[in-house]
Amino acid sequence: MDSSRGYSSHSYAPSAPELPPQSYGQQQQQDNYSYNHHGGSPPSHSYYSQHQQQQPSYGQPSFPAGTHAEVIRAFEMVDRDRSGFIDENELQRALSSGYQRFNIRTIRLLMFLFKNPHDSLKIGPKEFAALWSCLGQWRAIFERFDRDRSGKIDLMELRDALYSLGYAIPPSVLQVLISKYDNGSGRKVELNFDSFVECGMIVKGLTEKFKEKDPRYTGSATLTYDSFMSIVIPFLVSYD
Amino acid sequence: MDSSRGYSSHSYAPSAPELPPQSYGQQQQQDNYSYNHHGGSPPSHSYYSQHQQQQPSYGQPSFPAGTHAEVIRAFEMVDRDRSGFIDENELQRALSSGYQRFNIRTIRLLMFLFKNPHDSLKIGPKEFAALWSCLGQWRAIFERFDRDRSGKIDLMELRDALYSLGYAIPPSVLQVLISKYDNGSGRKVELNFDSFVECGMIVKGLTEKFKEKDPRYTGSATLTYDSFMSIVIPFLVSYD
Repeated sequence: MDSSRGYSSHSYAPSAPELPPQSYGQQQQQDNYSYNHHGGSPPSHSYYSQHQQQQPSYGQPSFPAGTHAEVIRAFEMVDRDRSGFIDENELQRALSSGYQRFNIRTIRLLMFLFKNPHDSLKIGPKEFAALWSCLGQWRAIFERFDRDRSGKIDLMELRDALYSLGYAIPPSVLQVLISKYDNGSGRKVELNFDSFVECGMIVKGLTEKFKEKDPRYTGSATLTYDSFMSIVIPFLVSYD
Repeated sequence: MDSSRGYSSHSYAPSAPELPPQSYGQQQQQDNYSYNHHGGSPPSHSYYSQHQQQQPSYGQPSFPAGTHAEVIRAFEMVDRDRSGFIDENELQRALSSGYQRFNIRTIRLLMFLFKNPHDSLKIGPKEFAALWSCLGQWRAIFERFDRDRSGKIDLMELRDALYSLGYAIPPSVLQVLISKYDNGSGRKVELNFDSFVECGMIVKGLTEKFKEKDPRYTGSATLTYDSFMSIVIPFLVSYD
């Protein structure tokens, strides 16, 4: 639970995880602002090497070239009607095979952030591969900061983990974010991987939306009331 | 379910509900911008006259002068330890007596919006009276737009109801907001009073936060990344 490792090994600068042998055709990106991110970047080698063989994949027309066979299997296992799209419940089952069972709330957030804006509540192979890849990277970051392998990280570790992913979030904001997971027991709040992904995806999603309004990365953006409401409301996911 | 009544009776201008005999010491406010609101304004007479006698209240030191006896009773019924504060579960029970049982999600949003910022997750008599009063107004608006007394309103009625409350929300934003209540049945989405309050309070809360950043009511605001994140994240309520 010591956060010094993350910072000391990274000299207080956002640092990309190692690249895996296959880069999924996506370039690692790094920008020079406090709300950088590596959304959609490839999974770290360290995670994949623990969990699977690096099998060459011959791909399918619908998956990006070089997609791992495991990713394709996970998708096809749940896409039983071979429609090429999966819904939120299918996504939950598909990710269970590679990661763990995520809360449906996290799944809906992932769906919202990764789906093609033109598709309604479904994701296809390309988006699924990008999501899987991103989760691989985030799993590696999570494990790096969960030094005692408790499966949980605390506030300072969350801050460092998000910093590693390229997001410099003010402690006051993180405090509000993590307080959502306070069960009132009085004990220090800690996040499991599911909650870490939820927190991180909220940060990633809001940051990307903000950056669209701040294309020159000045750190401020002028928003109309309508655009402000349009950006924020989709993040208020429902659970009915 | 006809939305014309709301607009035709209000000439497309935000219109305040009638004032009740007692004004709770709060002034009805109206500003001249598209995201006006009447937060904390008194309940409409039409609602109160249906549900209770307008009894003079002799108040208690902690309640504002003129608070209805029913409001005090509802609060005291759940504040069993006489601490002068109630938590979210107690708030849920207290409101059940005057309105209905709200979803804990709505309750948390109400708590967040009405509590004193210095109190953590509790509200006192003054805030409770303001909340009760606001809900009274919203109930009257809801009933005005639920013409067939089905207990539900649709997208256009929601738009008109929010407009009556002083919020002019773009249809595209409302569509996103109401889609959170789509159960996938393919039927038109309709909101009960609980969901109406949740939607409306999201709109009210975000609008008030935006207005703080747009003190001259120009319709746009310049936000730093930190302030943007700090505004939005508290609205992402948790359900663990």
